[in-house]
Parts: sequence; C-alpha cells; structure tokens
Amino acid sequence: MGCGTMNFEIERADFLKALGHVQSVVEKRNTLPILANVMIAAKEGAVVLTATDMEIALTETLPVPVKEAGATTVPAAPLYEIVRKLPDGSTITISHRGGTEPLSLKAGRFATTLNVLPVEEFPQLAAGTLPVRFELAASLLKGMIDRTRFAISNEETRYYLNGIYFHAAETPDGLRLRAVATDGHRLAQVEEVIPEGAERMPGVIVPRKAVNEVRKLLDEGAVKVSIALSETRIQFRVGGTELTSKLIDGTFPEYERVIPRQNDKVLRVAKKDFAEAVGRVAAISVERMRPVKLSLSRGLLVLSAMSPDLGTASEELDGERVHYEAAPIEIGFQARYITDITDQIEGEVEFLFADSSAPTLVRDAADLSALYVLMPMRV
Amino acid sequence: MGCGTMNFEIERADFLKALGHVQSVVEKRNTLPILANVMIAAKEGAVVLTATDMEIALTETLPVPVKEAGATTVPAAPLYEIVRKLPDGSTITISHRGGTEPLSLKAGRFATTLNVLPVEEFPQLAAGTLPVRFELAASLLKGMIDRTRFAISNEETRYYLNGIYFHAAETPDGLRLRAVATDGHRLAQVEEVIPEGAERMPGVIVPRKAVNEVRKLLDEGAVKVSIALSETRIQFRVGGTELTSKLIDGTFPEYERVIPRQNDKVLRVAKKDFAEAVGRVAAISVERMRPVKLSLSRGLLVLSAMSPDLGTASEELDGERVHYEAAPIEIGFQARYITDITDQIEGEVEFLFADSSAPTLVRDAADLSALYVLMPMRV
Repeated sequence: MGCGTMNFEIERADFLKALGHVQSVVEKRNTLPILANVMIAAKEGAVVLTATDMEIALTETLPVPVKEAGATTVPAAPLYEIVRKLPDGSTITISHRGGTEPLSLKAGRFATTLNVLPVEEFPQLAAGTLPVRFELAASLLKGMIDRTRFAISNEETRYYLNGIYFHAAETPDGLRLRAVATDGHRLAQVEEVIPEGAERMPGVIVPRKAVNEVRKLLDEGAVKVSIALSETRIQFRVGGTELTSKLIDGTFPEYERVIPRQNDKVLRVAKKDFAEAVGRVAAISVERMRPVKLSLSRGLLVLSAMSPDLGTASEELDGERVHYEAAPIEIGFQARYITDITDQIEGEVEFLFADSSAPTLVRDAADLSALYVLMPMRV
Repeated sequence: MGCGTMNFEIERADFLKALGHVQSVVEKRNTLPILANVMIAAKEGAVVLTATDMEIALTETLPVPVKEAGATTVPAAPLYEIVRKLPDGSTITISHRGGTEPLSLKAGRFATTLNVLPVEEFPQLAAGTLPVRFELAASLLKGMIDRTRFAISNEETRYYLNGIYFHAAETPDGLRLRAVATDGHRLAQVEEVIPEGAERMPGVIVPRKAVNEVRKLLDEGAVKVSIALSETRIQFRVGGTELTSKLIDGTFPEYERVIPRQNDKVLRVAKKDFAEAVGRVAAISVERMRPVKLSLSRGLLVLSAMSPDLGTASEELDGERVHYEAAPIEIGFQARYITDITDQIEGEVEFLFADSSAPTLVRDAADLSALYVLMPMRV
C-alpha cells in the first residue's frame, strides 16, 4: 500500500453488470488495440470503468471502498468473460502496480494477469459544454425508441437517416418532444409532452448504436434518465451509467411533408388476427421483399401474396375484426414493414389510405402519440 | 371425388410435427429444385411425407382417413412455415387435382396454392436388402450418440472420419456393440451389450447428418429404435418415422492402437469444479486453439493458460476435489476438447496420463461404458 499500487475489492455481481454495459460499446474488430480495452480508474470511494469506440463513450461509476487509487486499461472482452465465469457471490480483488505491469485479478483460488496499455493512450471523447439539460421518465424514452428505431435507415450513404431525430416540434397542442426515424420506405414518429428544459433544444440525430446502447440500459429498472446535449454531443445518464455520443452531423429531411393529412379511407382491424394473418400469407414468399396485398371492400379485408416459384396464399378477415366502410381499394406493402409497426400496437390498428400508390398512415387506434407512414409497393 | 383429386384432412399439430422432421433433411441450398420439395402421398388410411438430399431420405407415415388417394411434391420450406403459423388446433384440408395443378391447402379462412413438381422426378433412395436387423432402447442409442458425435471430424478430405463407426467388437467380456468417432486429436468410444441380431453386423460408418437427424428424433419420447442395415445403407425407425441413409464408403482406421493401455498416473477430479475452472482459465485465450495446462502434484491440480496478447490465468484445485498420488506432470489440452468430454460426465472425471506428450485416457469414474482419448498439445 501507499506505493502506487491500485487496489480494491469488488463484488462479482456489481462488476459483471458494469462490465456488461462497457463491453457492449467495445467494437469486436478494432484497428487500434487500445479501443479493445476498458479503462479502470480507482479513486476515493469509487471505481470508474470507461469504454469507447471513438463515437460513443460509456462510463460506469461504482461506489467501492478503494484501498489505493490508480488507473490503467485492460482488454475488455476477456475481462468480461472471466468475471462472467467466476462463481456467483465471489469477491474480486484487483490490483495494479502501475506502468506496464499487468493488472492482477484474484477471486478465491483463481488468478489472472491482464496485459495493460497506458491510460494516456486511451481516447477521451470530449463532451464539451452541454447547455440543454432535461429529465425523462425511463418508460417514456423506452417507448419513443421502441416505436421509431425499426425505421432507422441502414444505408450508409444516407448517413443523416442512420439515427433517430429528436427535436422540439410546434404542434396545434403546443410544443412537443418528438422522435422521428425513416428509411425512405417508412417513417415512424412519436411525440410526448416536452420536459422542462428541452423547449429550446436543437434538433439532434442520435446514431443507431447510441440508441441501442441506451435502450439496453433502460431495461434494468431505472425510473428516470437525465439527458444533456449540445449541437454535437448528447449524454444520457441512467443510474451510475453515463453514455456520451457524438451526434450525426447532417440535416434530417423535412419529413412532415411526407405525412399524409387527407387520407380518408379508414380501416380498423384487430391487431393480433391481422398480424398473424400477414405472417401466414407472407410465408409463401421466401424472398423478403415481396409485398402482401390488402384488398378492401365494405367489412372485408383479403390479404394475399404470391411467389412465381412457390405459389399463392390468401386469408380473409371480416366480422367483428374488420371495420371498413370506404370505397374498395387494393394496396401492397412489404410484410416486414407491416409487422414492425403492428409489433408496437396492442389492440386495434388503424390504416388511413388515399389510393394504391400514395403514402398510407398507420396508427394505434387507442394511442395517437405515435404515427407511422408506409409507402406502398406495386402489386 | 373419384375424379383423381387427392384429398385429406389432417390436424395441424400432427402435420407440423411430421413436417418438422421432413424439412430438417431438406438442404437449404439446392441445385436441383426437386430436392427442395417434400413428397406428399395419400393412400388408404395414411399420408406419407418424404424428403431427401440424395444421401438421406426421411419418411413420415401419418395415420389419416384419406378421402381420395394421390401424390405430388411441393416446396418443403414454405409449407412448413405456413403450417407452423396456422393457429393451434386448426384442421387442414389438402387437395390436389393431379398433374401440374398446384396443391391446395385450406384452414379456416386461410388458403394457399403451392406449385408442384411431378413425383416421377422425385429421387428415390433405394435401401436395397437390409439383412441385419435389431432393436435398441432409444435412451441407449441417445447415449451412444451424445458421447461420441462431438469427436466426429469436419475435415472433408478425411471423409472416413466424418461419421460414427458402429460395429460389433470382441472384448474380454464378450461381443459388444461399439460406437467410435475421432478427428485425429481426440477419440470417443462407447460400448453397450450387443442386441440380438447385431452379432454379425458389418462395421458401418454413419455420416454426421444422419447421426444428427436420428438424434433429433430420439428427443421425442420414443422408447425403442428399430435398425436395419446392409454394407451400404442403414435405416432407423422411430415411431412413424423412417430415416434411411447411405453409409460412408471408406475404412475406419484401426483406432484401438491409439487407445493407451498402460497409462498409470491417475487423476480423479470433481467434474463441476473442474469444468468451470477450465472455462475461466481458458477465457484468457480468445484464440480457440490455445491449450490449458494441467500441472499436477500430490493432491494439487493447477490449471493455467496464457495468451501473449492478453495475459495469463490460473486456478488451483485441491482438497476433496482432487485425487492425485503419482509423480508430478505438466500436460496441455485444448479447452474445448476437455469440456466436450466433461459435458458427458456427471460426478467425477478420471484422467490416466503416461507423460506430457502421450495420448491421455479420460473416463467417467462411475461409468466405464465410455472412454475418451485426448492428444496433448505442447505447452
């Protein structure tokens, strides 16, 4: 002690949970060896773990009675694997003599030494000043993410669509916090009461990986999330975990223009029956991109699909499960695009059609906080 | 009816189970379109489903009150997907007008037509005469497969090692039914009392895919398996399922020579503690092929591993968990090869070593029906 040896004891369960968050951020294939490492910094009363891929940094602060302060970096993947495989209930002792000496981890009769890289090489993702600060209920952020992230584009060339666009939107009911994602084929929008402090936030595009990492953190029972942001960075704090991400440096398209406002052919259909029928009918077309056709007439919905190689499939829905009173229409959508939306809807799905080739509006009949737009396919 | 229309009704649950077996045999990528199909043949009182990849044929016979006999072939994958997605408890009606007409499947308000290919094109895997016939308890065959198949070689050039070698072996205790697999790095052998009828069986190499398909069938609660074989074919019958496979046309090596008989350094170690420690220590070497070293001295086993890039790991086992009284030895094995064996052992693992470079014998201390041979790695 007192000779510059970092030294602390930590319960395996706490360490494992924190390392789980941290190793999730580490990219599996790195050109820079230091990016495969987690930084372990022990200071008075706390151990701080940090990982980064240069776009995102995740920091875990664990209240631990540190015996001797210090800091180094070790490979994240084997450390996580080892701690995962230690017996439940273990107490782990970590020590490091400094410099290029390996880090030592002991638990019972098990011991490991992990090669280190110096903390000076570990890239810092500077957050800068984050002037906008607000809090959200964890359940509310979870709902905003779940109902939009499936529509995030995977096309790297359209990098400005590779995330969720969060912004303060003027609506007839006043200012709202709105999340939007689109890949050009479909669009998802959720809006909620704007939290105090977010009224003047800039519009920000949060990249997919940051969205997914935050979403994982929200599954662990936290009640609220603290958010801080500037025009280039966003920071989420959930319990002892802080995730900082660069924002996508681009302009989100003027999406409001593609949201149809005049669609007047209304279909309401029971979600479970509808989604299951779509799945069955689509099973005929192994090729993912083939459409499912909806043929509507008064009180009757016929779903159908065909594959030139395999055959045809159809299913009728009517009676209590279908409400449709408008003029007959035939319209096609990719099955996956339909079920991505119905996965987010509980009771009844509402479609608003204009015609066979125009964007269609989809909503949860019982919850107007979200809306979805689907581009039809030729059938 | 009576106009050549194949027609029958079948319960979804029965059809799904049979199609599950059948579609498992169908190869996902086929050059010959007919091999993606399942043959459906309806005759008096039974529907027979058949699939083949030209090496294996699987036939399911379902007792069904057929209204009109007939036969055709349809794509197996979409048929399975559709039936899987139909509601539990559905009754399915299948009909086919013959020739190139599509097959029709209806259930409730759902309907599909599946394109057909003529039964004449469907390849028959001729079983020929199968002079050797015997029965095995399903649990016994399951045990023989589980304790050997992990050692089957994946090297296509050593095709004669790509299966399990079943044969009647002369032993000091008389004739036994023996199963052996090896990939040159390890060997697994299980022997059981020879069943009546198998005494004069030729030695046969059953290919991996047939082994795996039979193994799946054994999970469904059957009590016995009927086996029939010749020098070129083997047939397994489990309930209403019949699996016929070509045998590997090659000579299994004279494996008995590599089984050490004189190894006198005996280690007995508690399986659970040992397997978990091997897993932890091996976690330091992300590279799969690196060895775990066993360092033995009286009453003490030290497991260790190292990775030049990552670091080192070790764990000590002693006390009640380790029995070792022989001269000290250090010997290395690939971690996966050790855990493949310990996965098949319940209470105590017994190692018999000669020296650091000689083949090592491993056994379940409480069950001598199986033995394993491991080639050490240099450490």
